[in-house]
Amino acid sequence: MPAKGVAVAADVVIAGGGVIGTAIAWRAARAGLGVTLVDPERGDAASLVAAGMLAPVSEALFGEGALLRVNLLAVARFGSFAAELEQAAGRPVGLRREGTLAVAYDPGDYAALVRLTAFRRSAGLDAEELDSRACRKLESFLTPDVHGGVLFAGDWSVDNRRYAAALRSAAAAAGVRVVRDRVTEVLTSGDRARGVRLADGGDIGADRVVVAAGCWTGAIAGVPAPVRAAVRPVKGQLLRLRHPDGMPPVITHTIRATVRGTDVYLVPRADGEVVVGATQEERGPDRTVTAGAVHDLLRDALSVLPVTSELELAETCAGLRPGTPDNGPVVGPVAGAVDGSGPGGLLLATGHYRNGILMSPVTADAIVAHLTGQQAAPEWEPFAPGRFGAEAAGETR
Amino acid sequence: MPAKGVAVAADVVIAGGGVIGTAIAWRAARAGLGVTLVDPERGDAASLVAAGMLAPVSEALFGEGALLRVNLLAVARFGSFAAELEQAAGRPVGLRREGTLAVAYDPGDYAALVRLTAFRRSAGLDAEELDSRACRKLESFLTPDVHGGVLFAGDWSVDNRRYAAALRSAAAAAGVRVVRDRVTEVLTSGDRARGVRLADGGDIGADRVVVAAGCWTGAIAGVPAPVRAAVRPVKGQLLRLRHPDGMPPVITHTIRATVRGTDVYLVPRADGEVVVGATQEERGPDRTVTAGAVHDLLRDALSVLPVTSELELAETCAGLRPGTPDNGPVVGPVAGAVDGSGPGGLLLATGHYRNGILMSPVTADAIVAHLTGQQAAPEWEPFAPGRFGAEAAGETR
Repeated sequence: MPAKGVAVAADVVIAGGGVIGTAIAWRAARAGLGVTLVDPERGDAASLVAAGMLAPVSEALFGEGALLRVNLLAVARFGSFAAELEQAAGRPVGLRREGTLAVAYDPGDYAALVRLTAFRRSAGLDAEELDSRACRKLESFLTPDVHGGVLFAGDWSVDNRRYAAALRSAAAAAGVRVVRDRVTEVLTSGDRARGVRLADGGDIGADRVVVAAGCWTGAIAGVPAPVRAAVRPVKGQLLRLRHPDGMPPVITHTIRATVRGTDVYLVPRADGEVVVGATQEERGPDRTVTAGAVHDLLRDALSVLPVTSELELAETCAGLRPGTPDNGPVVGPVAGAVDGSGPGGLLLATGHYRNGILMSPVTADAIVAHLTGQQAAPEWEPFAPGRFGAEAAGETR
Repeated sequence: MPAKGVAVAADVVIAGGGVIGTAIAWRAARAGLGVTLVDPERGDAASLVAAGMLAPVSEALFGEGALLRVNLLAVARFGSFAAELEQAAGRPVGLRREGTLAVAYDPGDYAALVRLTAFRRSAGLDAEELDSRACRKLESFLTPDVHGGVLFAGDWSVDNRRYAAALRSAAAAAGVRVVRDRVTEVLTSGDRARGVRLADGGDIGADRVVVAAGCWTGAIAGVPAPVRAAVRPVKGQLLRLRHPDGMPPVITHTIRATVRGTDVYLVPRADGEVVVGATQEERGPDRTVTAGAVHDLLRDALSVLPVTSELELAETCAGLRPGTPDNGPVVGPVAGAVDGSGPGGLLLATGHYRNGILMSPVTADAIVAHLTGQQAAPEWEPFAPGRFGAEAAGETR
């Protein structure tokens, strides 16, 4: 079918304007490529609902060694990337280096925290065990009922909204062209990608196509079927609390609490917000904020930090993380079309699940390396698009 | 000080565009008077945060006999007023006649409910005691943990936002002129009110002035000091839940629950909303939605109706009810200025606390009676502005 509308040309077209797609766009433009970024809207992305925790391990499950290695790479890279970004964008991203205080509400919660701590230490990460009193010395508003905790001094956080805004500014300053539309299809010519088709019917021609469409990756025709089948939305609901005028900040560290087996985190922001999250729900593309989730988040937050009852409930929101069967991202070029798996010139950067903010710098590094004929870091090898096989493909509609 | 800005003239100027002020404006215009209504904004009123329960007793405290009599008058009047309003406005107000099911969560809650029931019966009102099974026959999603309940078949509810919108339409159709500004002062000439001064500095001249400014009554100079001191804001926070697409309504009656001594109500709307309320907080003019209040409302709602966890949390809001020391409204003319208590031609219609929606028709009837030389209903006598004495006045700043 011939395309209607105008055809536009670029070296690289990127489908998806969350932090992953925008970071890639900025770095690719800085590398001298002509970049067009396509996203239907600003703010629909999982990026804007995140809490911005930059924790290499508390998010990783035991046994996910390959994922841990990418996360460690990501943590090591974040600081220099953020500094360069702040300079390029001329605005702060709200990086905080106070660390994370993990607290356990009851003895069972504490046993789980001790196991996580041993795992983090085995990965060479700092962890300082603290009794209840020591926890409250660090965060005086914690309930005395807290059984104990661990300080992870190396965990940072970033204000995800400021970070996303800075990426947009930097990308614009670097000459990235933004098209407000939705990519419906990767266009091919023989074995090669030659651009994308938009929902409005227009085409954008490009030598290379990067799909960074998060949980919407499966909706883009031309992405290999096994990947389309592998990426699913995992709903996350979170809250933004605000201090009333004149109230000093109630926390300075990120607090991760396990309250009778359920996890809640509270992430402070420089501007006085506290982000409370987050649910993990398998509900397809549903983004409804539910009474039950808000209740549970507030209940757990109030359990460990009763003073939060006095904070303003400024916002409730829900986002969709792109999950995969092995909880790992999908980053790199699609193998050539000889085996029918996909066209050359097509790269994927999706499936970052709960680690999209943290991994955005190293994902951009990896994709730009591929685009410019460089070598991506070896940590990415286990996360190539080809790992999802025919079995997963068989599950597609 | 001479007024800047233009002077406008009316028979009656009304300060306050909530349901009280707007109901008065509509009825006064219908009675042939030239009416100007002054309010700084639409939506700032307590009227829009209400749940719209029309219950003569469950809102009344024991011993408030005079208040009960006005409430019974208000209940008896509401149906005909609403019918006339729907015709005048050409839109429905969302009146529901299913009644209120009061439920008690534990035996202590039930004992309190039994006492309330006896009081309602002594006032000649219907009340049918129900065991837990019978409650769940009426409302199948109630938790089996509910100890028991009482059906108050005569309690109605109205969609407060539709009701307020209908009043605005009817008032406009009747020729009421609306000025978006704030009344700062009742102007007098000798012993008589002669109009109002606006925040922008302009004046509106009028023979009669009605102050229906709710909890902002105290901010209007020229209102007698004892009344200014008597009316205080009582903060109420509530939630609006919405059914996801395809989910049938989870309740059909208004449910008032007492859960371990705290009260929560859930009021269904024709359009699928469920209003959950409400806190009562003495916090001055603060209208912040707090994490603690939202948590407590959700906790209590989920305790009696667990299915509400699946509903969308569509809105959280806070309003300010105009409370008074005796919990009764302040309705009627201010006594003449001979004793210094206030100017002639000044009428008050404020202090309706939790009963503003319910009392708005009979308040309009009473004020319009005074404006047109008729006799107001005798039930209003205990609620005249003169009842707050010098003692209360001594408390003003």
